[in-house]
Amino acid sequence: MSGTDRSRKTALPPGPVVILVRPQLGENIGMVARAMLNCGLSELRLVRPRDGWPSATAEAAASGALSVLESAQLFASTEAAIADLQRVYATTARTRGMVKPIVTPNQAALELRHEAAAGRRTGLMFGPERSGLVNDDIALADTAVTVPLNPAFASLNLAQAVLLVGHAWFLAHDETPPRRLDTNAGAPASKAELVNFFERLEAELDETGFLFPPEKRPSMVRNLRNMFQRMVPTESEVNTLHGVIVALRGKKGKGAKRSGG
Amino acid sequence: MSGTDRSRKTALPPGPVVILVRPQLGENIGMVARAMLNCGLSELRLVRPRDGWPSATAEAAASGALSVLESAQLFASTEAAIADLQRVYATTARTRGMVKPIVTPNQAALELRHEAAAGRRTGLMFGPERSGLVNDDIALADTAVTVPLNPAFASLNLAQAVLLVGHAWFLAHDETPPRRLDTNAGAPASKAELVNFFERLEAELDETGFLFPPEKRPSMVRNLRNMFQRMVPTESEVNTLHGVIVALRGKKGKGAKRSGG
Repeated sequence: MSGTDRSRKTALPPGPVVILVRPQLGENIGMVARAMLNCGLSELRLVRPRDGWPSATAEAAASGALSVLESAQLFASTEAAIADLQRVYATTARTRGMVKPIVTPNQAALELRHEAAAGRRTGLMFGPERSGLVNDDIALADTAVTVPLNPAFASLNLAQAVLLVGHAWFLAHDETPPRRLDTNAGAPASKAELVNFFERLEAELDETGFLFPPEKRPSMVRNLRNMFQRMVPTESEVNTLHGVIVALRGKKGKGAKRSGG
Repeated sequence: MSGTDRSRKTALPPGPVVILVRPQLGENIGMVARAMLNCGLSELRLVRPRDGWPSATAEAAASGALSVLESAQLFASTEAAIADLQRVYATTARTRGMVKPIVTPNQAALELRHEAAAGRRTGLMFGPERSGLVNDDIALADTAVTVPLNPAFASLNLAQAVLLVGHAWFLAHDETPPRRLDTNAGAPASKAELVNFFERLEAELDETGFLFPPEKRPSMVRNLRNMFQRMVPTESEVNTLHGVIVALRGKKGKGAKRSGG
């Protein structure tokens, strides 16, 4: 899906630094840059990337997220890469043989948001593709982050791990309503327009004898009204419905306004 | 990160069918299969894949998620692919020129969970890599799903879109505690063990004259106790702390139990 709209500015606060420890493939670094920018993260640090830096394969895989790659910083050690940060989260599938607090990405996102609000610099560490972070790197972090996944198939590539953790961070700042009706700038119909349509429909159906017998008419009317309420039509769509009635009744010239579509 | 543990069974309910409409690259179909299995989704349907089916490139890209590819079903049209489903969500970056309810992946996940609990068959539709779903396909769906992303950089590849929507579904069934302490089977220290350590530390510090002057001693003790409470040590770690005190004091043979490591 491509919904990029460069005219829209992000109002995101500065996010955590993403630290890739000894990444192996340039392609994965590029895909990480893309996933970061998808989630509004821009600050990338690399600890001894195996295939050198800068990387043409990283640029090719970044799908346009070059700003992230161009500003990426190189470090010789994990300690150096996190030296200026106050809180560091280490992404790992398991904390073997260590006693460590472990959070979900959603919990990490809430905590990172709180740390940032308190003026603290934060980081998210990710390990090499093949092996993940070693315990000595994890011991440098405050907290481990483990992405809940199907335990029978939990292998995630590096960019996918960054995407899932980064997206949890993005959502912690996102105010998209969970459910909305996209009317594409069309105005929702007012209740007066809707009731006008209901009465029109019911009058036409009375003429045809559909709302019969009389003792059932009230519940039939309520059912029809509920059906069309669920449609949540726009003004224009109510006009379309009037047009549909006219067409179905075959009464030319008796329609209300012209159909909207 | 790789945390696969094939001995662990998933207790996930049947998830939505994933329908890829006219997917272009076999590689992407393979990566979709992997992302699906990461999230506990197993039922894949393909509407007219451009490069034919089965696909060796899909298998190569699936990183072991072959069960999803082997059971994938082929369809000649979107209508046929969703015919037996009662609720269908269409993933799209935008609903251009259409009046459509739009939900976030988290909201879709909650609704899909509810639909499944009511015994209904559900599906998640994804469009071709380059263009996404066409409006005629979206009009076949109940609801659109749009992944909230950085509006300045919202280009997501097909497998990433499946991963984010699928992972929201997975999390709607996941009971991982947001924050926990992984003690790797070590027992948390009891409060008696902790108080015993506190008193040992304070007695040693009294001997050195560190807890001085006397009127400050109570607050210094409270601060120290809070510092070690935040450590949330295990039994074994409390023993280590006793050993550290012995070592720092240089009092051989006076230690409590041996250090735990």
